[in-house]
Amino acid sequence: MTERLGLSSATFHGSHLPTDRFSAWLAERGSVNAFRVDRIPFAELDGWSFEDTTGNLVHRSGRFFTVEGMRVTERDEPYGDGPYAEWHQPVIKQPEVGILGILAKEFDGVLHFLMQAKMEPGNPNLLQLSPTVQATRSNYTKAHQGADVKYMEHFVGPRRGRVVADSLQSEHGSWFFRKSNRNMIVEATGDVPLLDDFCWLTLGQIAELLHRDNVVNMDSRTVLSCLPVPETAAGALHSDTELLSWITGERARHDVHAERVPLAGLPGWRRHETAVEHEEGRYFKVVAVSVQAGNREVTSWTQPLFEPVGLGVTAFLTRTFDGVPHVLVHARVEGGFLDTVELGPTVQYTPDNYAHLPEKERPPFLDTVLEAPAERIRYEAVHAEEGGRFLNAESRYLLVDADERDAPLEPPPGYAWVSPDQLTWLVRHGHYLNVQARTLLACLNAAKAVVR
Amino acid sequence: MTERLGLSSATFHGSHLPTDRFSAWLAERGSVNAFRVDRIPFAELDGWSFEDTTGNLVHRSGRFFTVEGMRVTERDEPYGDGPYAEWHQPVIKQPEVGILGILAKEFDGVLHFLMQAKMEPGNPNLLQLSPTVQATRSNYTKAHQGADVKYMEHFVGPRRGRVVADSLQSEHGSWFFRKSNRNMIVEATGDVPLLDDFCWLTLGQIAELLHRDNVVNMDSRTVLSCLPVPETAAGALHSDTELLSWITGERARHDVHAERVPLAGLPGWRRHETAVEHEEGRYFKVVAVSVQAGNREVTSWTQPLFEPVGLGVTAFLTRTFDGVPHVLVHARVEGGFLDTVELGPTVQYTPDNYAHLPEKERPPFLDTVLEAPAERIRYEAVHAEEGGRFLNAESRYLLVDADERDAPLEPPPGYAWVSPDQLTWLVRHGHYLNVQARTLLACLNAAKAVVR
Repeated sequence: MTERLGLSSATFHGSHLPTDRFSAWLAERGSVNAFRVDRIPFAELDGWSFEDTTGNLVHRSGRFFTVEGMRVTERDEPYGDGPYAEWHQPVIKQPEVGILGILAKEFDGVLHFLMQAKMEPGNPNLLQLSPTVQATRSNYTKAHQGADVKYMEHFVGPRRGRVVADSLQSEHGSWFFRKSNRNMIVEATGDVPLLDDFCWLTLGQIAELLHRDNVVNMDSRTVLSCLPVPETAAGALHSDTELLSWITGERARHDVHAERVPLAGLPGWRRHETAVEHEEGRYFKVVAVSVQAGNREVTSWTQPLFEPVGLGVTAFLTRTFDGVPHVLVHARVEGGFLDTVELGPTVQYTPDNYAHLPEKERPPFLDTVLEAPAERIRYEAVHAEEGGRFLNAESRYLLVDADERDAPLEPPPGYAWVSPDQLTWLVRHGHYLNVQARTLLACLNAAKAVVR
Repeated sequence: MTERLGLSSATFHGSHLPTDRFSAWLAERGSVNAFRVDRIPFAELDGWSFEDTTGNLVHRSGRFFTVEGMRVTERDEPYGDGPYAEWHQPVIKQPEVGILGILAKEFDGVLHFLMQAKMEPGNPNLLQLSPTVQATRSNYTKAHQGADVKYMEHFVGPRRGRVVADSLQSEHGSWFFRKSNRNMIVEATGDVPLLDDFCWLTLGQIAELLHRDNVVNMDSRTVLSCLPVPETAAGALHSDTELLSWITGERARHDVHAERVPLAGLPGWRRHETAVEHEEGRYFKVVAVSVQAGNREVTSWTQPLFEPVGLGVTAFLTRTFDGVPHVLVHARVEGGFLDTVELGPTVQYTPDNYAHLPEKERPPFLDTVLEAPAERIRYEAVHAEEGGRFLNAESRYLLVDADERDAPLEPPPGYAWVSPDQLTWLVRHGHYLNVQARTLLACLNAAKAVVR
């Protein structure tokens, strides 16, 4: 399979849709289906309301998700990575496990992947390329009362294809309370009809599209990160045993406790007609939208979304040691993680949130990334986080070459040099790489493919 | 390292303490130190009391652990493994991560492991063989106000040795709320003084001791299960990708929610002077003891313990497919697991708790194990669970040969055939094997060593 994936990565001329016709195809899918998203006050939400006792934002069916409060404390030693050892914030609680699945099939001897032009209300450009299947448990158990999820039978049940990858991976620990989704890649057995809004692409084509802003959605990126791509080099700086031991040590040394609390009266946050927002205007807002869509399970609805207050910066610093490329991972505490710590990018911040801090409290490596000269930037594109929950949650994703002065061989506590092969090895299991690191792993593979 | 571990497993004559003198040595350690454990009513606990508002059993320092209530529900589809889809029970909450560590060192060219004769109040025979280091976070941050933890410097800090294994592993999901400990094996660099109550043993010697009842304590067994023992055979029935996919599917299909609730008024449970117990007398009791000990960090104390009501039966059914041994694992839901499901033994029950049920509701495979003729039993010993929290929590641990009639190639949902090598591969990571499966993995390796 790794060889076949390598061939697909090296193939830039797909059997179905030429890459230079992709934009026209996506635009056409947008024009065929009428999409419209409007901001509305909370009072105009249909089926959603603030619960009397807790102030939590809930749906009358008790399903989908709720917006609640979260209190996070880090106890004992002062190991916190942010400026605070205790904070409160709104959080999305959606305990059910969804499926994000990409279907693969060989055409003309090359693996192609079935991608979908899908509208999500929070996407800056509404329409992006999503996995074949992007289904919450409510989706496939019919809570929407809508249409069946297309191609679902390839991922669950007796007609399932050959599994290439299948793991539970976390979503944003800063915005979700312990949410994870099942990331699946499955090779189809037998014929697969091509439906409207879907297209078959090679990994080489997808790599090219990953170099464009706001085309490949977050769900696609996280599933793509799980591909068992061919190993390119041995000789990582740390053995796998040392790497696992370092991760274990990082988990053990942080004594973090996160608990859900009522959204009403959440310290530092206030609610008005159109938003729940931070007193200083930082971090994100909870807002509401109404949606009209032609090709979704249901054709119109209203829902809350989280809207970050600024453009994020998400980057790996990269160096080569003994000929082997490495990235600098950060053992991040995010309040919503199931298991305390996951490996994140070197830098994962919204700079505006830190602008008020004195120089020495600014996040490590942020300025190195912000001030990197063009020749050091090996990859850059703007991608948005999941548009079904987040409104205009855009971040610049970067791979930036560093040297000993920027990023030393012996990095500060909480950081470690890891090879991309080791990231691919870890992502077979859940709760090791956070969703931003997984996006960057997909970008790393894309950058490798397109340079070739 | 795997070769050196193989050599140690094949060495039955240790350089320090001959196995046939081990019992005398352990008895001598017991006689040197005066140990005494007495049951007491809750009112005689010192520093522990039932909190006014919640009825939770807590220590006045706010440390160590608390005994609280837990409510577990399994929603949506009826996938429950036990007879109930909702239940309440007392649970131990101890969120801090402790360290269980075994120190290794080569003598006469063979790896030896430093084991400790340690008293734990809940052990049926008080004194068992524990890891070199068995320290709660309270231990090593001095909440006990007692002596330093011996040999700790080999496991944390700048003088740490070479790491052989290091992972966070779950403890009992039926008794603990999301508890895990750091399981470490470290090879010492430099000289290691041999202190009273400690002895160096080869893996071959430890394998022999694992065939005796109540000698090797639970903490030792779980650490030993993490040894990267040599692989013995390729060709497992399922590829690693298929195995991970099956585990992911088992996690996704169970929609389990566990929450802590007050111990006071816990449905189905009642409290009297000396115990919190189930109305039907099933499962376990919460009791209190006073302890006198000569060689512990503090010399006398009182504490609560969980006391199961009967002898457990914990077993893997084993079969050989195409010359490769396999064990039948069970994807178990335990309310206290962090991530819903872990792989447990084929059978893990206290038969008395199921005696009231009609035949068809009895746990699968239990009768096969209980009725197995002697020639089918490849391993059997009685082991106790952690004596610092559990009183006389003994179980018969067994490996039982099965055939197609007892345990078919296509097992029922929730069960899968896995090779011991795959278990060793999984246990490098946390939250895959429950603590009982890890004990059986250590026993599997011991049975292999001693047969040789």
